[in-house]
Amino acid sequence: MATELSQSTLKEKSQRLTPQDTQSLLDSVDAFLFDCDGVIWKGDSLIDGVSDTLDFLRSMGKKLVFVTNNSTKSRRQYAKKFHSVGISVSEDEIFSSSFAAAMYLKVNKFPKEKKVYVIGEEGILEELELAGFTPLGGPEDGKKTANMKRNSFFEHDKNVGAVVVGLDQYINFYKLQYGTLCIRENPGCLFIATNRDAVGNLTDLQEWPGAGCMVAAICGTTQKDPIVVGKPSTFLMDFLLEKFNIPTSKMCMVGDRLDTDILFGQNSGCRTLLVFSGVTKESDLQDPLNQIHPEYMTTTLSDILYLPNNQF
Amino acid sequence: MATELSQSTLKEKSQRLTPQDTQSLLDSVDAFLFDCDGVIWKGDSLIDGVSDTLDFLRSMGKKLVFVTNNSTKSRRQYAKKFHSVGISVSEDEIFSSSFAAAMYLKVNKFPKEKKVYVIGEEGILEELELAGFTPLGGPEDGKKTANMKRNSFFEHDKNVGAVVVGLDQYINFYKLQYGTLCIRENPGCLFIATNRDAVGNLTDLQEWPGAGCMVAAICGTTQKDPIVVGKPSTFLMDFLLEKFNIPTSKMCMVGDRLDTDILFGQNSGCRTLLVFSGVTKESDLQDPLNQIHPEYMTTTLSDILYLPNNQF
Repeated sequence: MATELSQSTLKEKSQRLTPQDTQSLLDSVDAFLFDCDGVIWKGDSLIDGVSDTLDFLRSMGKKLVFVTNNSTKSRRQYAKKFHSVGISVSEDEIFSSSFAAAMYLKVNKFPKEKKVYVIGEEGILEELELAGFTPLGGPEDGKKTANMKRNSFFEHDKNVGAVVVGLDQYINFYKLQYGTLCIRENPGCLFIATNRDAVGNLTDLQEWPGAGCMVAAICGTTQKDPIVVGKPSTFLMDFLLEKFNIPTSKMCMVGDRLDTDILFGQNSGCRTLLVFSGVTKESDLQDPLNQIHPEYMTTTLSDILYLPNNQF
Repeated sequence: MATELSQSTLKEKSQRLTPQDTQSLLDSVDAFLFDCDGVIWKGDSLIDGVSDTLDFLRSMGKKLVFVTNNSTKSRRQYAKKFHSVGISVSEDEIFSSSFAAAMYLKVNKFPKEKKVYVIGEEGILEELELAGFTPLGGPEDGKKTANMKRNSFFEHDKNVGAVVVGLDQYINFYKLQYGTLCIRENPGCLFIATNRDAVGNLTDLQEWPGAGCMVAAICGTTQKDPIVVGKPSTFLMDFLLEKFNIPTSKMCMVGDRLDTDILFGQNSGCRTLLVFSGVTKESDLQDPLNQIHPEYMTTTLSDILYLPNNQF
C-alpha cells in the first residue's frame, strides 16, 4: 500500500530537470524522440540552442527521431525545412502524421484501386502518392464552391475508400460536404485523422486552429469518430521499433504538449520530458484538471546541455 | 410498480398515428409547434399536403408556431420564404435559432457597447441588429484570407464579447481563427451555438453539413463547449409560454429529428409527433442505440387530415 502511494505520488509530480537528471537520462536512454513545433522551432524560427543540443546528442551516439503531428508537410518537405533552419536531418529520421496516414493505409492493405479524399495540405497528398495511393481533394479543392441551387446535386466519387483529415488552411464548405458524403455514403469508407491538436504554431507570433478543428468539423457532421494515426496514438511506434530495434524504455519523448507528445510517450512506455518553449505553460501542468504528468519538465531543449561536469 | 412499468413501456414505444389518435390530439392540444426543414418543406419545395393541413389546423382554432434551428434566415426572411411557397405566416409565429441567439444576449443583458462576432449567415446578423447589437463577421468575412507570413500577426477586436456560431456555407480558416481568438483571448467572451444539427436539407435532393459541423470545429480548437440556444435547448420555450399563455402539456411539437425536435418537445413537457418526411427513417427510431422516442410517429404532416369522420 505504501509502495502504491509512493508510485502514485511520483506519477502525479513531474520533476524539474536537474543536471543530475540529465546525466542519468543520457546514461539510460539510447534514442531521443522530438516533437518539432514548440520544441525545435516556433513557426519558422529555430528555438535558441537547439542546433547545439542536437549536435551534442549525436556526438553522444544517441539516435534522434522527429515525431511531428503537423501534417502539412511530407517527410521530404520536412527534411528541407530542417535544412533551411540550419539543421541536417535525414528523411528516415522524420515521422510526420502525413507519413503515418499513408502507412496506416499501407499496413491495413488499403486497395490500390480505391481513392483517398484529403481534407488537408500538400504533405498528405505527397505521402499518399509515395505509398502508391491515389489522393483526391487537398489544396485543389480549396477554391471550389458547391452549387446550392434548388435541384443541383453534389456528386462525389463512389470509389473513395478513405477520407484523411489534417490541418487545412483552405478548409471550405465544399470539402466538408465532399468528405462527409464519402464517409456517410461510401460503404466501409475509413475516416482517418492525422491528429487532433486543437491549435498549432503556424506563424511565429501566435497559435492557429489545428487539425483538431477540421477533424471535429467532420465528426460534427458525420457523427463518427476517426482513426487517429498521429500522437498520442502509438501507431507510429511500431515503425520506430522495427527501424531502431531499441526498447521503448530506452527512448525519451521530448515535447511541448501534454495531450499528444507526453501522452504518446507514456502510452508507448517511453521516458518523457516536457519543455515550456511551446504551447504548455507550467500553470497548465499544475491545473487540478490535468491528468498527464511527464517524468521531467524543463524550460527549453538546450537545458540538456547543462550537465554536472559541463559548464556552458 | 405496475404503473411505472407501463409508463416506461409507453415511453419506449412510439405509436403510429391513427385517425383516432389525431382526433384525441386535436381535442387536447391548443398549439402545434412545427419544425420547418423536413416537415413543412425540403430545401425550397413545400411538402405535399402541408398547406391544407395548416389551413385545417387554423380553422380548428389552433395556434401555429414554427420553431426552426436553421439560422441562415431572420424571422422576416422566414416569413418571406413561407410566402414564396404559398403559405401565409406572420413573423410573430416564427421562432428561429437566429432570433434565439439575439434573444439570449438580450435576456442576459449583453452590453450594447460590446460586439458580437458571427460565424454564420445573414439571418443572425439581421436578428442581432434588430435587437440593438453590433455584429461583426458573417458573410463579409467569407472571402477574407489570413496572412500566414512568418512575422504577421492576426488582429482581432478585443471588444467582441460573444461569438455566435451557426450554419455557414462560407466557413473558412479566417473565421475559424477570428472566432477562436475572441473566445480564447477576450475575457468572459460567450460562445453561443444557434444549434448543433449534424446535417440540414439545404437543397432539395440531399443533406449538407449543418451548424453542428461549424460548432464542432470551434469546440475542437477552443476546447470549450457552447451555450446552445436552438432545439433541443428549451431557451425559446420561455418566449412561447409568455406569448401564448398555453401550458406545454397542451402543445404538440411536430418534427423530423429525434435529437433536436422531439427532444426539445420532451424537454419542454410537450406532446410529440415525429414525421418521416425529413432526416429520420423508421429504422433510426428502432435502432437499439436510440434513446429518444416520440409519443406518435407518422409518414408526413398531412396525415393529420385523416380523422375518423373525415374521409379525404
